[in-house]
Amino acid sequence: MARDRKTGQEEMASGTLYGVMPVLEALRSESGRVEKVLIAEGKPHQRIREIRALAREQGVPCRNVPRSVIERAVGREANHQGVLAYAASAGYADADDLIGKLAGKTASLCLVLDGIEDPHNLGAIIRSAECAGVDAVFVPERRAAGLTDTVAKASAGAVGFVNVARVTNVNRLIDELKEAGFWIAGAAGEASLIHSDHDWKGKWAIVLGSEGSGIHKLTREKCDVLVKIPLYGRIDSLNVSVAAGVLLFEAMRQREASG
Amino acid sequence: MARDRKTGQEEMASGTLYGVMPVLEALRSESGRVEKVLIAEGKPHQRIREIRALAREQGVPCRNVPRSVIERAVGREANHQGVLAYAASAGYADADDLIGKLAGKTASLCLVLDGIEDPHNLGAIIRSAECAGVDAVFVPERRAAGLTDTVAKASAGAVGFVNVARVTNVNRLIDELKEAGFWIAGAAGEASLIHSDHDWKGKWAIVLGSEGSGIHKLTREKCDVLVKIPLYGRIDSLNVSVAAGVLLFEAMRQREASG
Repeated sequence: MARDRKTGQEEMASGTLYGVMPVLEALRSESGRVEKVLIAEGKPHQRIREIRALAREQGVPCRNVPRSVIERAVGREANHQGVLAYAASAGYADADDLIGKLAGKTASLCLVLDGIEDPHNLGAIIRSAECAGVDAVFVPERRAAGLTDTVAKASAGAVGFVNVARVTNVNRLIDELKEAGFWIAGAAGEASLIHSDHDWKGKWAIVLGSEGSGIHKLTREKCDVLVKIPLYGRIDSLNVSVAAGVLLFEAMRQREASG
Repeated sequence: MARDRKTGQEEMASGTLYGVMPVLEALRSESGRVEKVLIAEGKPHQRIREIRALAREQGVPCRNVPRSVIERAVGREANHQGVLAYAASAGYADADDLIGKLAGKTASLCLVLDGIEDPHNLGAIIRSAECAGVDAVFVPERRAAGLTDTVAKASAGAVGFVNVARVTNVNRLIDELKEAGFWIAGAAGEASLIHSDHDWKGKWAIVLGSEGSGIHKLTREKCDVLVKIPLYGRIDSLNVSVAAGVLLFEAMRQREASG
């Protein structure tokens, strides 16, 4: 699926990346986003060498600093693994710009997150969205996690590569997506249609509800179709980030098969 | 998919047990929940010898520690009698029993986790495994998360409904699964076979590696097939619990479609 580079970086969401994998992913992506890397003195994590080598290759300065410098920057509780990078901002994309661009496409896959509150879930969903090559992830401004450092880390750096746009009103967003040619599929445990029996080709926005209460009633009513992932045990729902991954990769399986 | 109820569930409080009789009873029940016993240095209670003998029989590590270590864990007023045990919050199933039962089946789906270290990931995987109706989840005893309270919580209670068995050696487990009629599929980013192009009908055990480094080399070589989830972005891997969900529900999609 063709993807636009991230557009419209309005707002600084995450100036720092920490932890071995997020910094490594950011360097591997060769996006040029990484501006400086700080590494804690003392016994290094085994993959620090890889970070140093990539940084050198790309001309990114790499400095050894007392561990306390990194702790001051990210907090003592953060699992920084002795590495911190300053990156160009992974900002929010502009929702109107994005929808305008997507209106011209004949095929697209987007995610609408109707109130994901746990930053680890949001990060994991953004990571999966990036891996599935989605065109955009829309999140509400209120009562939902934003692009914090925790989200950036949980996304393994994917916040830097996927268009995340904030909207004030999810229902208005859905109307705008429909005007731009999208069909809207809501994920709901009580749906009768199994996700893999649904035809995901064309332009689809998948709506996922919050961890506790699912999609809001009004939003649900706006969906063109509701789908469920069939469950074969006694627990009545999957973790929302797992559900997002299952839906996205089933959609991609069908879309790739069609091409 | 038909599933047996979890076997060997004695009621036992999760977390810590202290005092001679509680620890002795826990070991006598052979539930497999006792993970470690700490014994205070100094004059031992007369029945400590029995605790040591049972622990040895069951392969439960038994460590001598200063009395203060136990006091710090349970409080100075607690009548710990110089003995403290850490118990898993859910019981493990017996691997040999499980494999014996599965040998008689013509269709089965199992998970083998080759070193998942993050308890949230382990919990989410067990939740997905329960939702997909898998017959068993196998985890190594060492260098891997066990069934702690954090795992139980992250699993949304699924630890109580799915057979989780610990094994000392993952490679030996794979040999035993093969003898019981299983085919072994390893998840590996560098595989050429796409997960949805693989035929998941019949008896399959899916091997997932650790968050950082994937499946161990020797284990990978024992797999009958390696599969990958195709990625369409720049990040080079999914979160391991998302990957587990995607693989399990693709396998279930195919298996349900077959009849």
